[in-house]
Amino acid sequence: MVEPDGIKALAFDVFGTVVDWRGSILRELEVFGAGRGIAADWASFVDEWRAAYKPMMDRVRRGELPWTDLDRLHAMTLDRLLGEFGIRGDLSAAEVGQLNTAWHRLAPWPDALPGLGRLKRRYVLSTLSNGNMALLVNMAKHAGLPWDCILSAELCRHYKPDPEVYRMACTLLGVAPHELMLVAAHNEDLAAARAEGLRTAFVARPAEYGPRQNRDLAAEHEFDVVARDFGDLADQLGCP
Amino acid sequence: MVEPDGIKALAFDVFGTVVDWRGSILRELEVFGAGRGIAADWASFVDEWRAAYKPMMDRVRRGELPWTDLDRLHAMTLDRLLGEFGIRGDLSAAEVGQLNTAWHRLAPWPDALPGLGRLKRRYVLSTLSNGNMALLVNMAKHAGLPWDCILSAELCRHYKPDPEVYRMACTLLGVAPHELMLVAAHNEDLAAARAEGLRTAFVARPAEYGPRQNRDLAAEHEFDVVARDFGDLADQLGCP
Repeated sequence: MVEPDGIKALAFDVFGTVVDWRGSILRELEVFGAGRGIAADWASFVDEWRAAYKPMMDRVRRGELPWTDLDRLHAMTLDRLLGEFGIRGDLSAAEVGQLNTAWHRLAPWPDALPGLGRLKRRYVLSTLSNGNMALLVNMAKHAGLPWDCILSAELCRHYKPDPEVYRMACTLLGVAPHELMLVAAHNEDLAAARAEGLRTAFVARPAEYGPRQNRDLAAEHEFDVVARDFGDLADQLGCP
Repeated sequence: MVEPDGIKALAFDVFGTVVDWRGSILRELEVFGAGRGIAADWASFVDEWRAAYKPMMDRVRRGELPWTDLDRLHAMTLDRLLGEFGIRGDLSAAEVGQLNTAWHRLAPWPDALPGLGRLKRRYVLSTLSNGNMALLVNMAKHAGLPWDCILSAELCRHYKPDPEVYRMACTLLGVAPHELMLVAAHNEDLAAARAEGLRTAFVARPAEYGPRQNRDLAAEHEFDVVARDFGDLADQLGCP
């Protein structure tokens, strides 16, 4: 058990750390395709959709795009992929919009809700995600995620791992950096938080990217906690 | 019962509408005074503290003060009042700081938690308060307020009733103005929301300002709902 002395709040990365975006989107695309009689390699579709996530945010981070929220970035990529997969002409605008909000309906990893329930009794639990506020609010409502606060990169118009995002979380929660712990499945996010003085907890999600995942399989820096899942995290933080 | 057609989210004013600031602060001051052996007219103290609320925010709204969050405005007024009541010299900085965060520990009106529980099953529930984020997060944790989202004037650096605050709530929740209902005990707040196209619900809180309350005793405009309390609001919105 680590010494949780002085930690007041936990901020969670969401996509991949709390929810299984790949499995959730894949299921929704498969159900959609079956219902509409559209055959496609949906696993490739979801992987390409997600592969565009970081490059699109990086265009915003570099100033090549003005501030654009994640729903809109997802929609831009979706439009391109529907064309590349040859199915754009089959869909109405309403259907495309509904598909884009699949990112609002992601399912938690099996350990997430029980672990968050234990952690919530001791700590303030917040998101700290690149998802926009509406996406995160809808996801929490849909999945029953018990956040005390929803914080998004949208609030400071910088995407993680820009340092502004971690600083904003401290300011808005009214805590010093060492009183806030970022929980994430991604080394880059945690390293950036650590550079701003936050505490850090790595939770491995070896199935996040599917069967061929070759990144973020283990902690690559000195983080305060390395946990197998949210139950293990609650154990290590002394939350019964 | 009103027709709740198309309403997706409810945004709540907090001070006075959800929580009893006067009773809560008065109790905390009385306990504090008894423990420290300090006698004062604590009812006058709390009434003067709150009387400075709007003028202080108006100085920010007019640009006479740069953006200053509510914790800091409360602290500025507290410092002045401790001087005027002749008790500043008795207190350490830590004690003054602890007193200032009494605003983070306000108790809900008796109908608030049961009513919010009913409303939460159908609607997204958010705050829309002039309190800063940390204050609202701490208050929710302390009182068990089941918000889906915490939104504060701090996020757009405008205080209600500036229109920017209501517009921000729609943007961040991803809803059109007519899909968002402001719930408040204050005519001015609701009238400003209505001017931005939001739906409005007035909930009378005739004891908010204590026994001599002479304002906001009734709805003074055409609001969509006028309710006696949050239970009545849930009834009128068809939430069992």
